Amino acid sequence: MLRDRRAGVAFTQELEQYLPHVSIDCVIFGFHASALVVLLHKWKHLNRWSLPSGYVRRDESLDAAVERNLHERTGLRQIGLRQFHAFGGVDRRERMLLEVYDTLGIDVPKDIWTLTRVVSVGYYALVDIRQAQPRADEISDSCTWYPIDSRPPLAFDHDSIVDMARKTLQTDLQMRPMCNMLLPEQFTMSELQELHEAILGRRLDRRNFQKRMLERGGLVKLPERRTGGAHRAPYLYRFDVKDEPRPS
Amino acid sequence: MLRDRRAGVAFTQELEQYLPHVSIDCVIFGFHASALVVLLHKWKHLNRWSLPSGYVRRDESLDAAVERNLHERTGLRQIGLRQFHAFGGVDRRERMLLEVYDTLGIDVPKDIWTLTRVVSVGYYALVDIRQAQPRADEISDSCTWYPIDSRPPLAFDHDSIVDMARKTLQTDLQMRPMCNMLLPEQFTMSELQELHEAILGRRLDRRNFQKRMLERGGLVKLPERRTGGAHRAPYLYRFDVKDEPRPS
Repeated sequence: MLRDRRAGVAFTQELEQYLPHVSIDCVIFGFHASALVVLLHKWKHLNRWSLPSGYVRRDESLDAAVERNLHERTGLRQIGLRQFHAFGGVDRRERMLLEVYDTLGIDVPKDIWTLTRVVSVGYYALVDIRQAQPRADEISDSCTWYPIDSRPPLAFDHDSIVDMARKTLQTDLQMRPMCNMLLPEQFTMSELQELHEAILGRRLDRRNFQKRMLERGGLVKLPERRTGGAHRAPYLYRFDVKDEPRPS
Repeated sequence: MLRDRRAGVAFTQELEQYLPHVSIDCVIFGFHASALVVLLHKWKHLNRWSLPSGYVRRDESLDAAVERNLHERTGLRQIGLRQFHAFGGVDRRERMLLEVYDTLGIDVPKDIWTLTRVVSVGYYALVDIRQAQPRADEISDSCTWYPIDSRPPLAFDHDSIVDMARKTLQTDLQMRPMCNMLLPEQFTMSELQELHEAILGRRLDRRNFQKRMLERGGLVKLPERRTGGAHRAPYLYRFDVKDEPRPS
């Protein structure tokens, strides 16, 4: 596609409303078919995938920016995004955007800040993928869920952002029953274990897992059992959201 | 002091080496006389205190920038700084720096980025204050420890940065015996409890505390006891740094 100088000028002007050298990235996790899944955009006309991301307006907090960008880019909103890390390496690969500008036919100045160094603040959220219905925006071919362990390689440094988000999730798992969003309201101990295994990326011992979960508190055993399976009907549980363990 | 236009030009030129709109702040915790303490600068010729902080060079990662700034501003280095949060509110009070520029006699352009909006990435560390000997730099009258609960009001939004760092420390306390740096190598259960109380800002029940600490693991009971006190000689413990609990 021919590069359009006027489109470049318009783009540069539009960029004026954003705080230079700062961006946000969203890692949105779900749980499907015993696998941890992550929400990815496929760039239009490019064989490249990346996280939902964007820039911060000069008059907008980071928290507001991530909410706005997520909504504009995926249609999702109010999903409880939590900041987890600022990515500030000098090797972050912003120049990959040049491909995008080329594809969109935008002729931008070579020293535009979006192509130089950008510090990106990462946020993550856990969503119920039966409720959350993401849609692609005009610069994406698709916006959909990929199993985290068989996702396509991601553009920029988004693979390391996903890895760090998963590590944060693994640590947070210890702290509190935070997986409400990833399971149905009532679940069996096996389903809870499958979820933990998907997040941790390794198998857990069934008996130890059950013991630890019950000791830790935060689970309510329900009077009903799950029926209809081939095995003995397992107990059902729900999270007791008020019963979060307090620091020491 | 008269403002010096030439100093302003030199300052603006020097600022060119830094990534605009990004800074780092350090919350350095210690433990002294049963109190959690925090390291603060007093600005030269101003009745203002703030955290050690600084800017990020264009060719320097956030992690490298925080190490360099901490060393330049306090003399401390390699103290295990951990990133904990990026502060990106639109109400961050960078214009307070105008006072500093005035005091230093620097006449800066009104639209210089340091006076506009800056996103700051917060790091914290725990140090043994008998080992760490901070010193003031040329723009500070002093650089010294203040009890966190009776510190002077801080400039910018540094009070909320300290509060968030303490909250992170409180959460981290649950996760692992991370207080190695805040206690002598051998310590009694009462000393460990005092430290937890200082971090949490509330009293804990002695018996429950001891039970929880021993159940959690990560402590090694030593054959020696502490002698010389008025009471029965208490047991001594040390941290077993290899025995950190793993995620679920």
